[in-house]
Amino acid sequence: MKHALSEAALPLGFRFAATACGLKKTGALDLAVISSDVPASAAAVFTQNLVVAAPVLISKEHLRASKGRMRAIVVNAGNANCATGEAGHAAAMRTVEEAAKRLGCMSQELFVCSTGVIGVRLPLEKILRALPVIARFRRPSARSFAETSLAICTTDTRPKTAAASFKMAGKRIHFVGCAKGAGMIHPNMATMPSIKAGTAAYRAFTAALEEVCRSLALQIVADGEGAQRVIEIEVRNAKTEAAAKRIAETIATSPLVKTAFAGGDPNWGRIFAAAGRSGVKFDAALVDIKMAGIPVLRRGQPLDFNERAASNKLLSEHVPLIVDLHAGKARARYWTCDFTAEYVRINASYRT
Amino acid sequence: MKHALSEAALPLGFRFAATACGLKKTGALDLAVISSDVPASAAAVFTQNLVVAAPVLISKEHLRASKGRMRAIVVNAGNANCATGEAGHAAAMRTVEEAAKRLGCMSQELFVCSTGVIGVRLPLEKILRALPVIARFRRPSARSFAETSLAICTTDTRPKTAAASFKMAGKRIHFVGCAKGAGMIHPNMATMPSIKAGTAAYRAFTAALEEVCRSLALQIVADGEGAQRVIEIEVRNAKTEAAAKRIAETIATSPLVKTAFAGGDPNWGRIFAAAGRSGVKFDAALVDIKMAGIPVLRRGQPLDFNERAASNKLLSEHVPLIVDLHAGKARARYWTCDFTAEYVRINASYRT
Repeated sequence: MKHALSEAALPLGFRFAATACGLKKTGALDLAVISSDVPASAAAVFTQNLVVAAPVLISKEHLRASKGRMRAIVVNAGNANCATGEAGHAAAMRTVEEAAKRLGCMSQELFVCSTGVIGVRLPLEKILRALPVIARFRRPSARSFAETSLAICTTDTRPKTAAASFKMAGKRIHFVGCAKGAGMIHPNMATMPSIKAGTAAYRAFTAALEEVCRSLALQIVADGEGAQRVIEIEVRNAKTEAAAKRIAETIATSPLVKTAFAGGDPNWGRIFAAAGRSGVKFDAALVDIKMAGIPVLRRGQPLDFNERAASNKLLSEHVPLIVDLHAGKARARYWTCDFTAEYVRINASYRT
Repeated sequence: MKHALSEAALPLGFRFAATACGLKKTGALDLAVISSDVPASAAAVFTQNLVVAAPVLISKEHLRASKGRMRAIVVNAGNANCATGEAGHAAAMRTVEEAAKRLGCMSQELFVCSTGVIGVRLPLEKILRALPVIARFRRPSARSFAETSLAICTTDTRPKTAAASFKMAGKRIHFVGCAKGAGMIHPNMATMPSIKAGTAAYRAFTAALEEVCRSLALQIVADGEGAQRVIEIEVRNAKTEAAAKRIAETIATSPLVKTAFAGGDPNWGRIFAAAGRSGVKFDAALVDIKMAGIPVLRRGQPLDFNERAASNKLLSEHVPLIVDLHAGKARARYWTCDFTAEYVRINASYRT
């Protein structure tokens, strides 16, 4: 696993470019294109939200129409083009049209993505002015990939990239990914070469892909707005995986739990209480909890522990939390970050 | 509706007392008793959490055993006696025993409530030492009621009380209530005299009771940890009441929405997006949104509005928010508060 990417880590045949077209008030990079020299097998995960931005609707339709053979992604940050009405839809369509012309592909071979503030008109003219430039200056370079990973950022404090590779039939296969987060999470690109399930190559392939995805997910959580630390929640020995996941998610999204982690407070009571209101039935008298490796609850009974030592351990950058239900064999893992005053500062002043 | 209570506002036959027994480090009032001179009809709403404190289990059992005829409530703040194992259960039982002896009633006629930190052993000896004193000094006075309303507070910045009255058969009937909040909400007391449904007296009774409950609920929200303002969310014209409530709740608990309100940011996009991920199906193209009386979205299309004027209105103590789905006739109302850096400060340092 490499985080600092070299040119050799990039898959062949992909080119990248980014520019600052003026969507971000700071003058930072805000428009990027990633293109494949040939039609590439593509897959995407789209939002489940009913309030869907025009670019999402258009990208979905293109993926269907092209039967999963895509050529490029055009992405801007600084404006989500969401809840922008008919004008927003027209702006996304016009972006696609112009990009297709400049990249020399069909409109339906393009993904178009927008991330940033919701409900503000997309300044289309800025994008149209910049598209010819970035189309022309696409490069298969580590630097242009790094620029692309920066252009998709919104409140991120740093870009998120990951790479992995493996050997198949004597050839080295490369994966590379970038992501943004974590006010909203925006899965960017997954190219999926077709191979045979069950083979060693398949296992190597999925392991490498999972490594990249896991690394990106962790980078997003670690750069959660205002976050100081990552909390890795593991719920063990639940009756079902769904039950384990639901408990983990309830703990991970509890403001009381997340603020306690901000202060390094070994407040396992809030964790126990969050599990209790998750909607999952379990026997509270069987539960064990460990925070940062320290047992704090065993079979529902509180344990004595050194509060000061625990608090010191909780101030680490990575804090494991284990909740064992002793109810079955299923488990789930969930990453979250702490909830700081800085999160409030960022989000109370983001738009105006 | 009166907030500053006089002695005349208190129902006859109830006595109150509170003391500082040492559970709160600050030396503030932390133990109270409310008693009825005769067995009183009682009802209670208990937590749905699976992690249940011993006092809740005991109070539930007592209410069942006494067939809803209770004599007193013993309540402490500063320690929830929750997740405290068998020792916690024994401590609550011992509290009840001693209180029954001192108050001259049966154990099963007592509610016992504890609120505060979870998972820390209850200092039983402090409670046992103080019970004889508060039992002796119970008074049917506005002052002792006010002291009781303070003793149940935890992170509250002010006590919450409300009173209402109405006439029935020539007599004036009085309601009084107190509550604590809002890290956790603790419904304290509801006395329910039996009357006939459908009559004018019944309507007057329920109106007065609802007035007290509504006032207490609003006071709890307004004193939410770190809160600057109350947001009153109304979801209109949903298909079902459950759908309206679910959307309102998703908006009300969204950290992105609540932080935007902290900054007076008219960020209706986050409200629209919260509704969209609520799990309720609706047509986004039919939705209207009004913030602080200002239309910002109509039929899914963003409207122009004066951002500065809107922001000023959003800095009020009470901000109405209306989401109209144009999908049916059901509605729901939900109160929430804004989410400030002060909330984080309180909860990142509450226990240690």
